[in-house]
Amino acid sequence: MKLKSRHLLGLEGMTKEEIELILDTAKSFKEVLERPIKKVPPLQGKTIVNLFFESSTRTRISFELAERRLSADVVNFTVVGSSVAKGETLKDTARNIEAMKVDMVVIRHSSPGAPHFLSRVVKANVINAGDGAHEHPTQALLDMMTLREKFGRLENLHVCIVGDITHSRVARSNIYGLKTMGARVSVCGPKTLIPKDIEKFGVGVYYNLEEVIPQVDVLNVLRIQLERQKSGLFPSLREYHRYFGVTREKMQFATKPIVIMHPGPINRDVELSADLADGPHSVVLEQVTNGVAVRMAVLYLLGTTTIVENEVH
Amino acid sequence: MKLKSRHLLGLEGMTKEEIELILDTAKSFKEVLERPIKKVPPLQGKTIVNLFFESSTRTRISFELAERRLSADVVNFTVVGSSVAKGETLKDTARNIEAMKVDMVVIRHSSPGAPHFLSRVVKANVINAGDGAHEHPTQALLDMMTLREKFGRLENLHVCIVGDITHSRVARSNIYGLKTMGARVSVCGPKTLIPKDIEKFGVGVYYNLEEVIPQVDVLNVLRIQLERQKSGLFPSLREYHRYFGVTREKMQFATKPIVIMHPGPINRDVELSADLADGPHSVVLEQVTNGVAVRMAVLYLLGTTTIVENEVH
Amino acid sequence: MKLKSRHLLGLEGMTKEEIELILDTAKSFKEVLERPIKKVPPLQGKTIVNLFFESSTRTRISFELAERRLSADVVNFTVVGSSVAKGETLKDTARNIEAMKVDMVVIRHSSPGAPHFLSRVVKANVINAGDGAHEHPTQALLDMMTLREKFGRLENLHVCIVGDITHSRVARSNIYGLKTMGARVSVCGPKTLIPKDIEKFGVGVYYNLEEVIPQVDVLNVLRIQLERQKSGLFPSLREYHRYFGVTREKMQFATKPIVIMHPGPINRDVELSADLADGPHSVVLEQVTNGVAVRMAVLYLLGTTTIVENEVH
Repeated sequence: MKLKSRHLLGLEGMTKEEIELILDTAKSFKEVLERPIKKVPPLQGKTIVNLFFESSTRTRISFELAERRLSADVVNFTVVGSSVAKGETLKDTARNIEAMKVDMVVIRHSSPGAPHFLSRVVKANVINAGDGAHEHPTQALLDMMTLREKFGRLENLHVCIVGDITHSRVARSNIYGLKTMGARVSVCGPKTLIPKDIEKFGVGVYYNLEEVIPQVDVLNVLRIQLERQKSGLFPSLREYHRYFGVTREKMQFATKPIVIMHPGPINRDVELSADLADGPHSVVLEQVTNGVAVRMAVLYLLGTTTIVENEVH
Repeated sequence: MKLKSRHLLGLEGMTKEEIELILDTAKSFKEVLERPIKKVPPLQGKTIVNLFFESSTRTRISFELAERRLSADVVNFTVVGSSVAKGETLKDTARNIEAMKVDMVVIRHSSPGAPHFLSRVVKANVINAGDGAHEHPTQALLDMMTLREKFGRLENLHVCIVGDITHSRVARSNIYGLKTMGARVSVCGPKTLIPKDIEKFGVGVYYNLEEVIPQVDVLNVLRIQLERQKSGLFPSLREYHRYFGVTREKMQFATKPIVIMHPGPINRDVELSADLADGPHSVVLEQVTNGVAVRMAVLYLLGTTTIVENEVH
Repeated sequence: MKLKSRHLLGLEGMTKEEIELILDTAKSFKEVLERPIKKVPPLQGKTIVNLFFESSTRTRISFELAERRLSADVVNFTVVGSSVAKGETLKDTARNIEAMKVDMVVIRHSSPGAPHFLSRVVKANVINAGDGAHEHPTQALLDMMTLREKFGRLENLHVCIVGDITHSRVARSNIYGLKTMGARVSVCGPKTLIPKDIEKFGVGVYYNLEEVIPQVDVLNVLRIQLERQKSGLFPSLREYHRYFGVTREKMQFATKPIVIMHPGPINRDVELSADLADGPHSVVLEQVTNGVAVRMAVLYLLGTTTIVENEVH
């Protein structure tokens, strides 16, 4: 079996079989990560450019580790010191990458749709590492991989995503992926930070953690973007923490052990209390490990498939 | 045949035979770039430092791709976060690189002559990736490679370089290289941006695009440095575009198909109209592809030649 | 023989035998650096993260060269553009690195003890590349390697460290290492920049270069941190140079040839005159070469030893 697209732009429209293929492949690569020598040869001689228009530590390093462990050659391109400062358009950047005969491009960009645009103008495989508030597919895949490890299944799990849903690409990709895999998804956050039309995605909506906690298997707690405070949509940090911060106190409403996820980096004691972040129900570090495995799987599946020339625009 | 120097500092003084050797070697490497696996082993175990004192996207990435595809180990050194901020001189930087037993150094610096200085104090091969307004030899080599592909020859081609000639290392290296290869070279731009003594280089001078367009085979359109606006030498952007912007309207004066080149990144609709940049006579993307091939050729020719110890100062 | 710790956090507490093991290993690697192909395979398949929270040119490049020459895969992480800007704690960064299954971490941090903290929370080998004013063990090791080459021994050498002793991790690591190896160590600098309790380290204290110069074999001249001027502890640069700048004039008090060391980058004609820095008694470039060899030795010794799992916290 193969993925249908040469790119990973998002989880919207991806089939259950495709997601399972990625998760199964990631499971094999995770075994590689447990070995003393974590390197395997499938992308030897291939060149991957990491094109990061937004700063990021862990996503960039996670991709870079995945790339090197598949034996690819890696070129990093970040906005700092780049010709984007000289006013170069994404289109020109894309065409240049294309002309330099790069095999794969991992792109993070503040504009939704930037990876899709790129995929239409280059022959290289394009992997979305986060585009604005749109999608962050490898994050959702690693979240699902972690839940499958924990529960043995995704079907009928009830996952509640907590926080600023409106501006979250992590939320959006998780909703697409989890729904496709048969999970039940809810969101919980302040009214000002939940899209009005969210129910059309088939998710439950809660404005109160105490109400949703008794019903769920998993809380996926989103990072609060502190810089978003100025927007006016946002309560004070104190108020946010009081109503939507996931704390031991609020967890007393749970009726069973609840798995706690966070895409990181955590604002400790803001959206998630430090004791829960480090506690036995937290899987945040498993998420990080699985991030490398999932990215290896995606790079492997896309990078070792024959390129169909006439698909290219 | 071999190159006479262990360094590539500029095209001034390089012979026709040497330039042909580089272009022929680049042609072979271009074939490598068309393969699924674009990596070859000649620089395995060699260390190359990319020493960039000016920010650059495409030149740095182009060199880095060339280096990795020759299997070299690559260390990037950029001004950001460097000890140059601590006031270290180029001399000390150079000596340190030397002492670290680096094999090759690619340097971009805002001071004309910085690579030449470096070449006198280190044993490593030095490659000029642009020094102030002096030379940018690999750019001119890739321009010549592109023209040779297009026309099958460089002899008697008429190439007009358009823009801010005074401050352009691209112009200077192209003039040296093209004249050596037997091409006819003209320059065209505002009087304030053309050196008074330019004719001693054996180039024609035009202050009017309508006048030169009917005579040329090639327009090599330089990037306008928008930050140069403040200098007083410069007309407004609108005025510049009106008189020296290369547009479909002005191209109607052509008497034959004219090849359009640009070293990138393009200020679309300033020095070059977007439709021409993307049109059938533009070779800007071929230039980018050839850039990697030419840099592989230069690195290969310099890096695989035995070092003559007593040449070193 | 093996090193006792899985980490290199400092020279405090390291035995003479361990230091000798590192210096002997470094000597072998220095021979590798003289070969045309400077690459050896022992760390093939291992991943090393260079985690630099302070900017640095030469230390980062020296480590990176050492890593690549041992065939490791290298991921650079610098503060610029990192999630530390997003407020991530060192603890979270450490745990993430751990979760990504990195084999070794080289860390530079402005807080004393940061590498020690890291070593307690990750399984990876941790190498201190400078922590605040605490230790910089590889610098002291390369200094000792250079002296052993020069004198054939460290026992009974008299080394005087000149400058701002209080704020110097280079001074501290040199004192620990040299004392362990049987050398005699003195310090010399302005009263305000020498710790009151320095004598408990078993070092001689001088406030006058003319007095100490006749007695020593080696002057290890520290870099003056120009930004420290504002502290009030510091004389003017002119005054500093007059009393503590090492100059040809002051060297006339020498009774034998004195070897001059400097960790770099040198403020020429401030703490060390340019003619001495470049003169026949200066070993600053040998120090740089030995830096790569010593770092290869440390990485090799730590990276090829079996990990004892139950040592990990």
